[in-house]
Amino acid sequence: MTVASSARAQSPAAEAPKPDAGKPDAGKPGAKGLPASLAWKDPNAFIVHSNQTVETKRGHTGSGVITPVGRLFIRNNVNPPPDSIVADRDAWRVEIAGVASPRTLTLAELKRIGLASVATVLQCSGNGRKYMQDALQPGQTIPGTPWTVGAAGCVIWSGVPLKAVVDMLGGPAGGVKFVTGTGGEDLPAGLKPKDVIVERSVPISTLDTVLLAWEMNGEPLPLAHGGPLRMIVPGYSGVNNIKYVKTVALTEAETDAKIQAASYRMHGVGEKAAPTQPAIWEQPVRSWITGPLDGGAAGRTVVTGVAFGGMHAVARVEVSTDGGRSWTDAPLVGPDLGRYAWRHFALALDLPAGRHVLASRATDAAGHVQPEDTAPNGGGYSYNGWRGPAVRIETT
Amino acid sequence: MTVASSARAQSPAAEAPKPDAGKPDAGKPGAKGLPASLAWKDPNAFIVHSNQTVETKRGHTGSGVITPVGRLFIRNNVNPPPDSIVADRDAWRVEIAGVASPRTLTLAELKRIGLASVATVLQCSGNGRKYMQDALQPGQTIPGTPWTVGAAGCVIWSGVPLKAVVDMLGGPAGGVKFVTGTGGEDLPAGLKPKDVIVERSVPISTLDTVLLAWEMNGEPLPLAHGGPLRMIVPGYSGVNNIKYVKTVALTEAETDAKIQAASYRMHGVGEKAAPTQPAIWEQPVRSWITGPLDGGAAGRTVVTGVAFGGMHAVARVEVSTDGGRSWTDAPLVGPDLGRYAWRHFALALDLPAGRHVLASRATDAAGHVQPEDTAPNGGGYSYNGWRGPAVRIETT
Repeated sequence: MTVASSARAQSPAAEAPKPDAGKPDAGKPGAKGLPASLAWKDPNAFIVHSNQTVETKRGHTGSGVITPVGRLFIRNNVNPPPDSIVADRDAWRVEIAGVASPRTLTLAELKRIGLASVATVLQCSGNGRKYMQDALQPGQTIPGTPWTVGAAGCVIWSGVPLKAVVDMLGGPAGGVKFVTGTGGEDLPAGLKPKDVIVERSVPISTLDTVLLAWEMNGEPLPLAHGGPLRMIVPGYSGVNNIKYVKTVALTEAETDAKIQAASYRMHGVGEKAAPTQPAIWEQPVRSWITGPLDGGAAGRTVVTGVAFGGMHAVARVEVSTDGGRSWTDAPLVGPDLGRYAWRHFALALDLPAGRHVLASRATDAAGHVQPEDTAPNGGGYSYNGWRGPAVRIETT
Repeated sequence: MTVASSARAQSPAAEAPKPDAGKPDAGKPGAKGLPASLAWKDPNAFIVHSNQTVETKRGHTGSGVITPVGRLFIRNNVNPPPDSIVADRDAWRVEIAGVASPRTLTLAELKRIGLASVATVLQCSGNGRKYMQDALQPGQTIPGTPWTVGAAGCVIWSGVPLKAVVDMLGGPAGGVKFVTGTGGEDLPAGLKPKDVIVERSVPISTLDTVLLAWEMNGEPLPLAHGGPLRMIVPGYSGVNNIKYVKTVALTEAETDAKIQAASYRMHGVGEKAAPTQPAIWEQPVRSWITGPLDGGAAGRTVVTGVAFGGMHAVARVEVSTDGGRSWTDAPLVGPDLGRYAWRHFALALDLPAGRHVLASRATDAAGHVQPEDTAPNGGGYSYNGWRGPAVRIETT
């Protein structure tokens, strides 16, 4: 008998879905099956938190660098627009503002400006929140989906560099400090638009890397992942990558939309979010084990996992089989898809019979090392400890 | 009105399917739809030559480096084994011979030896045969499927390096000069096994790069592409990448199976194949245009395509819009997945109204330049000219 679980959660049941109550995107609380809109995905690959909140099971991202779209997580703040917006993809319109010659362009027009591809880790800002929720003191709460490691994948995006579009429209207007993207969701009736609109600002420094993407992994971008057009901000957490993007504006100030001003901020547990707090933008260095998740027979085993540096390449990964008492460097395997992609690692070793706690610890090219743990914050954002996602197994 | 076609074939109809008569794999000649076994693939992405011979339409490989499995070509020399062989993938057995300690290993056992990934161009040896067939003199024939550019894709494979398996089994036996893989097809009754078995030998120098792969693009390898286990020889043409591999032997001599001895050899048109002729192994440098395939409006356009060097990285790609009279260097775009992968290129330029012949010409890191054309050979193998796949468009 073997046990696969996080080092804190003692059984797989502890990773079972919880309702995501109180969110505009909450579907059937506790639903176990994929919603109809995601029926095209691999039904065995997911933990379903809600209709719009679907986590890839650990070990289901594959070993080939790129996460198959059919196994990639889903997280929406607002329900997606209707299918009709992908019926004629090339007709999709995006307004480009904050440039010398503002203009609305169709996707067909964007395709005639330029083409680039970039591989990025797409990760929900709250991936790993469960490890913070598990560490709270009595009376404390962190709202939000209890993601473990599966709100993340590595994707190749193809589209046009925003910089090429801005250059064609005469360059940035004076004084701009942010790139502000607005999603094309239909906003729920009865709510103030600014309270629900998906509109995010990121620093203007990203202008050199932002992509307006129409393909994911070589296929037309599915509606569920933001098709026909998504604004990709390499290295930045998921919420900054605006789905069905309808406006891209270079702006002097951050948007005052609630999702920017009063959400996705770094603040203490129990405190309110405020625009003065750091925004959830760049992702920190992180890694986790993807196998083995079951103990099986003692003997030679390959310990595998993924590691990424957010804004920086991965420089080193270490693996521990004794819960962090000792560490061994693990070889990176497979092609290197660039600084924003993840790397797989694989360490062949002999595991004697008994209990083992498998953990991984990554270091990025700028020297950032994954900490043992990440102190809980009010939103449960940016967890990057190595302790939380450690895996307990027993070999016989 | 615009016209998209090869520079030789004056209309799209010239690229329509032809029967693949006389081959053991021939399905319904002239069938237009995907066979039931491939119903999971994108029905709009293919030219169906036969039930086991399916070509990706030009421009349907996507722009994201990796070809989606649902759009990847199919070519089988013998009908695939039954679905039952992928019901319990880990139970698949492969015999490893020609080593100090020969042994049969299950896929589950292979997974505990090591893990690596490699991106390779998977390409039928006869990709581009149509351009040779079109250039024949009266009375000459080249048998085989009239592939244009679509018997190729770029795939990430994950599995165990053959070298790690061989090392674990005590290293190569003395005197070995080849790696010989045998496919697990059920052989048709009434034929001599050696006449139909898919068994290929490649030089022992490949021992450092061969992968025994169980994943394609991060997903369990589909039966149609050789699952549960395929022997991948990076840089070598498709036939050398043995599907459902059941034996991998390090051997002193090349196999005398017909597919090695009397097929896939470089010989003159009308001559018989013989073991003394060069085997079809390493792929030459090649590229082709993927867009635009329709003319549309004159003005700014992005000319795109793919380029690969076979055994070498791509060093340079040039694009012509005037059928090869003048050339402009085209930027490579997207992540570099290593020497065996293809690169996308994208050149933004202004196309005035009128007729244009778009061509691309690649140079590999060893200095090999794509020739204008490739002289026909008896098997229609290894076409790599830039003239054949050139695209004629008219802008207005």
